[in-house]
Amino acid sequence: MDIRSLSSSHRHPQDAPYVHKVGLPPKQKLFSEFKATVKETFFADDPLRPFKDQPRSKMFILGLQAIFPIFEWGRSYNLAKFRGDLIAGLTIASLCIPQDIGYAKLANLDPQYGLYSSFVPPLIYAFMGSSRDIAIGPVAVVSLLLGTLLQNEINDPVGNAAEYRRLAFTATFFAGITQVTLGFFRLGFLIDFLSHAAIVGFMGGAAITIALQQLKGFLGIKKFTKKTDIVSVMHSVFASAHHGWNWQTIVIGVSFLSFLLVAKYIGKKNKKFFWVPAIGPLISVILSTFFVYITRADKQGVQIVKHIDQGINPSSVDQIFFNGGYLLKGVRIGIVAGMVALTEAIAIGRTFAAMKDYQLDGNKEMVALGTMNIVGSMTSCYVATGSFSRSAVNYMAGCQTAVSNIVMAMVVFLTLKFLTPLFKYTPNAILAAIIISAVIGLIDFDAAYLIWKIDKFDFVACMGAFFGVVFVSVEIGLLIAVSISFAKILLQVTRPRTAILGNLPRTTVYRNILQYPEAAKVPGVLIVRVDSAIYFSNSNYIKERILRWLIDEDELVNKSGQTKIQFLIVELSPVTDIDTSGIHAMEELFRSLQKREIQLILANPGPAVIDKLHASGSAQLIGEDKIFLTVADAVASCCPKLVGEV
Amino acid sequence: MDIRSLSSSHRHPQDAPYVHKVGLPPKQKLFSEFKATVKETFFADDPLRPFKDQPRSKMFILGLQAIFPIFEWGRSYNLAKFRGDLIAGLTIASLCIPQDIGYAKLANLDPQYGLYSSFVPPLIYAFMGSSRDIAIGPVAVVSLLLGTLLQNEINDPVGNAAEYRRLAFTATFFAGITQVTLGFFRLGFLIDFLSHAAIVGFMGGAAITIALQQLKGFLGIKKFTKKTDIVSVMHSVFASAHHGWNWQTIVIGVSFLSFLLVAKYIGKKNKKFFWVPAIGPLISVILSTFFVYITRADKQGVQIVKHIDQGINPSSVDQIFFNGGYLLKGVRIGIVAGMVALTEAIAIGRTFAAMKDYQLDGNKEMVALGTMNIVGSMTSCYVATGSFSRSAVNYMAGCQTAVSNIVMAMVVFLTLKFLTPLFKYTPNAILAAIIISAVIGLIDFDAAYLIWKIDKFDFVACMGAFFGVVFVSVEIGLLIAVSISFAKILLQVTRPRTAILGNLPRTTVYRNILQYPEAAKVPGVLIVRVDSAIYFSNSNYIKERILRWLIDEDELVNKSGQTKIQFLIVELSPVTDIDTSGIHAMEELFRSLQKREIQLILANPGPAVIDKLHASGSAQLIGEDKIFLTVADAVASCCPKLVGEV
Repeated sequence: MDIRSLSSSHRHPQDAPYVHKVGLPPKQKLFSEFKATVKETFFADDPLRPFKDQPRSKMFILGLQAIFPIFEWGRSYNLAKFRGDLIAGLTIASLCIPQDIGYAKLANLDPQYGLYSSFVPPLIYAFMGSSRDIAIGPVAVVSLLLGTLLQNEINDPVGNAAEYRRLAFTATFFAGITQVTLGFFRLGFLIDFLSHAAIVGFMGGAAITIALQQLKGFLGIKKFTKKTDIVSVMHSVFASAHHGWNWQTIVIGVSFLSFLLVAKYIGKKNKKFFWVPAIGPLISVILSTFFVYITRADKQGVQIVKHIDQGINPSSVDQIFFNGGYLLKGVRIGIVAGMVALTEAIAIGRTFAAMKDYQLDGNKEMVALGTMNIVGSMTSCYVATGSFSRSAVNYMAGCQTAVSNIVMAMVVFLTLKFLTPLFKYTPNAILAAIIISAVIGLIDFDAAYLIWKIDKFDFVACMGAFFGVVFVSVEIGLLIAVSISFAKILLQVTRPRTAILGNLPRTTVYRNILQYPEAAKVPGVLIVRVDSAIYFSNSNYIKERILRWLIDEDELVNKSGQTKIQFLIVELSPVTDIDTSGIHAMEELFRSLQKREIQLILANPGPAVIDKLHASGSAQLIGEDKIFLTVADAVASCCPKLVGEV
Repeated sequence: MDIRSLSSSHRHPQDAPYVHKVGLPPKQKLFSEFKATVKETFFADDPLRPFKDQPRSKMFILGLQAIFPIFEWGRSYNLAKFRGDLIAGLTIASLCIPQDIGYAKLANLDPQYGLYSSFVPPLIYAFMGSSRDIAIGPVAVVSLLLGTLLQNEINDPVGNAAEYRRLAFTATFFAGITQVTLGFFRLGFLIDFLSHAAIVGFMGGAAITIALQQLKGFLGIKKFTKKTDIVSVMHSVFASAHHGWNWQTIVIGVSFLSFLLVAKYIGKKNKKFFWVPAIGPLISVILSTFFVYITRADKQGVQIVKHIDQGINPSSVDQIFFNGGYLLKGVRIGIVAGMVALTEAIAIGRTFAAMKDYQLDGNKEMVALGTMNIVGSMTSCYVATGSFSRSAVNYMAGCQTAVSNIVMAMVVFLTLKFLTPLFKYTPNAILAAIIISAVIGLIDFDAAYLIWKIDKFDFVACMGAFFGVVFVSVEIGLLIAVSISFAKILLQVTRPRTAILGNLPRTTVYRNILQYPEAAKVPGVLIVRVDSAIYFSNSNYIKERILRWLIDEDELVNKSGQTKIQFLIVELSPVTDIDTSGIHAMEELFRSLQKREIQLILANPGPAVIDKLHASGSAQLIGEDKIFLTVADAVASCCPKLVGEV
């Protein structure tokens, strides 16, 4: 018999007792163990699988296709697909043009920069991205975040416009670098640390903040606070109520907002009419611009766009700060904005990939998004990412591939080249109404309610992020969201659950007695299950918790006059790993029990645990014959002795 | 039948099939759930248990005893115990006096401050602490850490002595505040985040750094680097080799270091002679002082202590910075030094409590240690904590209670009052030799080797901390240790293990096929076990990992022409919890499988999981009849159908 194996018996329904040993996995070489860990951590998706056993020329083509997926799906592209992409592209273009102009304002930039960001980045993405449904361009939340962060550094975005713009490009550049780096070093899993619940809260809070910001344009207020928290904004709004509001603006704003909301409602009620809310914004812009031009309402105090630079993206390579004090600020802002933009894009990509059942390589996506932002930062764009609302429209309009993004970019190109003068009389109130109707969709009551029903801790994270954004600022909301998410992980590994097990009547199955009230305790035996890997962060707690179960049980036994506890069985099935601190805790537990004349028995240790119990010599200390394959075996080993003593 | 229960059958050896349902735990009220979580997190040790059902007067006494344990154990104190404490106290006093003088130098303070810190803090601790074996006073690692951190702020501790000292008291004050706060708010578990492995590495590195620092006194070098990394120090040592070394100093140092090491060896070989290394340092000091006094070797360049202020601790209340720029620096240094000091003291306390089998309340200990440092900072002491070496001597000398600390404090008191002039001719080389021989014990090769054997990741943390301290600085080493420990936790929750299960022949037990090579896969069924709670940080990974198992299995099946996989059983026993992201991932997994015509089956969900599966409606989506009590039941449910198709 292998000295490293432990014997254990288990009865089979129809058979005589049959002996099974607690398996000790074959000793792994250090290097192969290390390699396996690295692979699971960074290359969990096995990106090199298609390259296996391929000739060199084929590998080159595969490599090219890996970096530029367009060479893969482009080969099977046909006219039928193009029809879908053309319609979808035109639809999202009509949606994105008015949104871009408005979002640029959120980032405190001139309107053309929003349009620029809807021209170059989608083109780059179309070549490198692997999502078929995402619609690329500036989005509300990232624009707001970028605007807030930049304004923290440069207080006067209007007076200091050139410097502000340069910092924006710098931040965009480093947002791209961050995204490429995360993708290239396969650190994509880092964005998973922003939990779904935190994102729901953060998005909802950002939507409200953005909507509140629109009150400036919507009510025609000229002096407005630069802070984004609800208290400052409402103070600003009511302080200017007497002489700062412009009724003509309000009339225009309210009527078109109603129109947009009705359009949205129609699209929601009947999926066939998805195009109604999609072209609503463009129609509003055309109608209201025409109306203002006719009535010259701008002379009545209705604020208008006035001017959008004509022509496509100028180069901005020389505007990025590569040294000086702004470099570091740009890097910091870029990292934050880049991560948030990534989170949004990957969430969208995954959602639609799951709906159409195709695979999305998160790390490859990050490289694509990052490259697009790096190129964008050199062509006067600010941070672009995937937009929730436009991607949904894209999907519903029947897009087939990323060609819809190319179509959209072409429309934006034509707009920049020829149509910008037409936006001169567009009232700001319309842009405000368009943004409000767009961001309302980010407030997801249903998701928040579901979170409340499923997990209260998640709900706390969700609300923390929400109120942090609404009452303080976007950064604080983000910080709260991340902190609560981390606290949850730490709590889980610091205070894992433990459970007392009992025998289900007429079976050999042992289960948590709280979950199965019919499960019966075995007299004289306490069975505890530890529900987590035993690590330094929880080893002391687990040891003390087990001893506390024992004290509680002893009290109970004393009161009822049952058999004294003589065996403590620790069920290790959920214990996937143990470290040196955990081994120490087990040995201390063994010694404490020895002093109380209680026998420690272990049941079903996993491969990592049994391996380390042996390596440390604890298995010998506890006794190799005290380690069993199942709880049932362990109980069977105690019972004969107990029966004799009762 | 309860609609919220799910039926499942399980066969018992001797019986007809018997139906057990997957238990749904009784719905907990939100508040009681919240209360239970808070209790397990902060009051895991149930500190109010003794107060239950007690009359008011008794509760007052119990409360007093809880804060001042001396009132508890003092009542059963007797002469026999005092004999043990007296001997132990005298022994540790003889050890601590020369150490204190040396350690004060590590903190860049005058020698008397080391002695002060061995007078007041042990007295306070004796009244408030609950460890019976710990020996309180300045320790090498904390002295070095404090010295390094303080010197980062005030570069010239000699020229700027008054300000440096004030900052030291400020840091000590806030170290105490940190400790009390952690204890009072029951955040003691935070120190568990510094893993055993990290501590071993950190201590070893600190020991080498401290020993290297002693080369200054040991070789009689006058110009010495202020940096602590090995490169700077060795450069300093060799640069002064030609004209900076003093041979008389070296002779004294080497001979007494040999003496101390031999004494240490004797004590280690035979536990009866533990007192040999304990009084070795005092004997060395006496002999060498006498020798220098007789030969006037100080005129030959042998550096001596020269002067130690006579008299007990002066008040330093008015020296603590409560405002100004140094306040914040003091707070920061205090938090770091306080945490490290706590870690050391708690580790010692726990070790000896486990050896004598008494309970130690970590949070109460923190309050005691913190109070002692706060009072200490007002009486010219710097951060004191439990010393590894002196506590071991205390234990071996037969201490019974904290009275040994009082005895030691009394000896220090007498020394301060009357004996300090006698240290005038003590050569610095002796203090260096004493420190070197003391810190050598902190390098624990055996522990490092055991860590290597048990857990390679722990070993990386250990070595990271070690090399960080040796090659860069104490703070960096500490930072590396904490970062690696956190990385390990994050890795665990981001990339949990999954395993393929197989049936152990002639049983109904299903186990990991890697651990049990004899376990056989069931044709047409893939059984995957997820080894972790499913949270936002790993939900995507788990979903994709399971699908990848499926693809691998499909390839295998295609090659060998076996039955196609039709059922995927996910064993949820180790899944102790699931959150909203996890629920989403399960639903996405279900939909992906549906498209591939594979049936998803769940086995043995725990109470939290089954509860949330119901709350979210996923249980209905997957099908309540697809959730089983055991893997065996789940397999049994697939097999009849499979048999028909094969």
